[in-house]
Amino acid sequence: MERLSLNQITTKRWSLAEAIEGCAASGVGWIAPWRDKVAEIGVEQAAKLLKQHGVRVSSLCRGGFFTGVTPDGSPVDGVADTREAIDEAAALGTDVLVLVVGGIANNDLAGSRQRVADALGELAPYALERGVRLGLEPLHPMQCAERSVLSTLDQALTLAEEHPAEAVGVVVDEFHVWWDPRVEESIAKAAGRILGFHVCDQLVPLTDTFLGRALPGDGPIDHRGLRACVEAAGYQGPIEVEIFNAELWAQPGDQVLRQVIDSYAEHVD
Amino acid sequence: MERLSLNQITTKRWSLAEAIEGCAASGVGWIAPWRDKVAEIGVEQAAKLLKQHGVRVSSLCRGGFFTGVTPDGSPVDGVADTREAIDEAAALGTDVLVLVVGGIANNDLAGSRQRVADALGELAPYALERGVRLGLEPLHPMQCAERSVLSTLDQALTLAEEHPAEAVGVVVDEFHVWWDPRVEESIAKAAGRILGFHVCDQLVPLTDTFLGRALPGDGPIDHRGLRACVEAAGYQGPIEVEIFNAELWAQPGDQVLRQVIDSYAEHVD
Repeated sequence: MERLSLNQITTKRWSLAEAIEGCAASGVGWIAPWRDKVAEIGVEQAAKLLKQHGVRVSSLCRGGFFTGVTPDGSPVDGVADTREAIDEAAALGTDVLVLVVGGIANNDLAGSRQRVADALGELAPYALERGVRLGLEPLHPMQCAERSVLSTLDQALTLAEEHPAEAVGVVVDEFHVWWDPRVEESIAKAAGRILGFHVCDQLVPLTDTFLGRALPGDGPIDHRGLRACVEAAGYQGPIEVEIFNAELWAQPGDQVLRQVIDSYAEHVD
Repeated sequence: MERLSLNQITTKRWSLAEAIEGCAASGVGWIAPWRDKVAEIGVEQAAKLLKQHGVRVSSLCRGGFFTGVTPDGSPVDGVADTREAIDEAAALGTDVLVLVVGGIANNDLAGSRQRVADALGELAPYALERGVRLGLEPLHPMQCAERSVLSTLDQALTLAEEHPAEAVGVVVDEFHVWWDPRVEESIAKAAGRILGFHVCDQLVPLTDTFLGRALPGDGPIDHRGLRACVEAAGYQGPIEVEIFNAELWAQPGDQVLRQVIDSYAEHVD
């Protein structure tokens, strides 16, 4: 259980303080906070609560949106926002900032991918100076248009390799990559660049492109198989359980965390 | 316009006879019938109507489901069913049968992929004898669990290459492959094996994993770019417009076909 980390989105109803307390009370030593929840109490107070409860931060969620648009189409300066996120990560005591790179701007896939590469070039030195590594998380291809023109681990790795491993790496989230016929090979190639491993399952049938996730064991994903791959590639860090699921989100946080712990113990650990 | 083919699912409300008549009346020289619609009047009558109206068949939809389960979880003998589909394709005068290989059986992705490879080994000689080529159509990764453990063009090509090009090839459907960072490279590698090119667009936001398609031009897909790729790889055959979309399906067939012709002329041709 010592590697289990609660990605805060999983217990969406909990404030950051509640989530930190919940983890501490249940013996979960890691958490991955979301920035909107951090902002509710401020970074300093968040850092203080984390220290007080002895809960460490596996990663901060999230920077990115380098293509200039949010999923709902609003304009955003992803580079400026990610600079702030890098500072927040450092202040929270984690060296991993997860990046969701952004969807397609102006129906221009190639141009949007180029904007991502350009943004990384701007941000990598800034992150390196602050001891924070940028974790490129490829998202499922069904989220390409709205959220991420980065769709496979191979593609993320190619981008990351333009920069020092101390500055840019990749995050392996099962939900986004499990279907990929090249996933095992890509994980092996990512050795030395893997900054996080996120677990959850996929609902079948998959009817919702955003909320179609489930507790480990409730779908077709081979958790122990993928875990073996990331471990063979040298990753020994925390394992985040990150679940977007409307039914779980409707439940009280402690009830959700109990299910997270049980499913992790049964299907991942 | 001479390469435009109406994939029959696009005008879902039309019977096969109506679709053939609609194509003939609009100067569309090609159609891709679906087997359930063919079955309503029988293969012989279908072949007779096609001949009578001078409409040719670009491909028959579809065989497959080799993993033993349909999308709703019912058992199916995909190999036996596909043998029948091969005979039907030959009787309808087309040399292309599209295959949707089937989703994950028993939560075993690797085993399900193996069943697909095994089924192809059984069926390729049968298809070759009858002059029908099997067109492996990779489906979008969001349909991996329910419909197709074949998710990328690369993966389809690797499977196809186990067999003579006269027996097994691949079908490039934009909706399923547009997001793939390797799509251009994969299409180039598929030279000599491309048996069909299907066009449509993707709705944004993508809220439905099955019906999220749109007329060409109503989404982020670069139709002329992908068409240039398949043509550079030597494909000069019919181009099917295949759209799963609830709003279109609610409209009368002739109204849909008019929009298909207009959007094809503006964005694909």
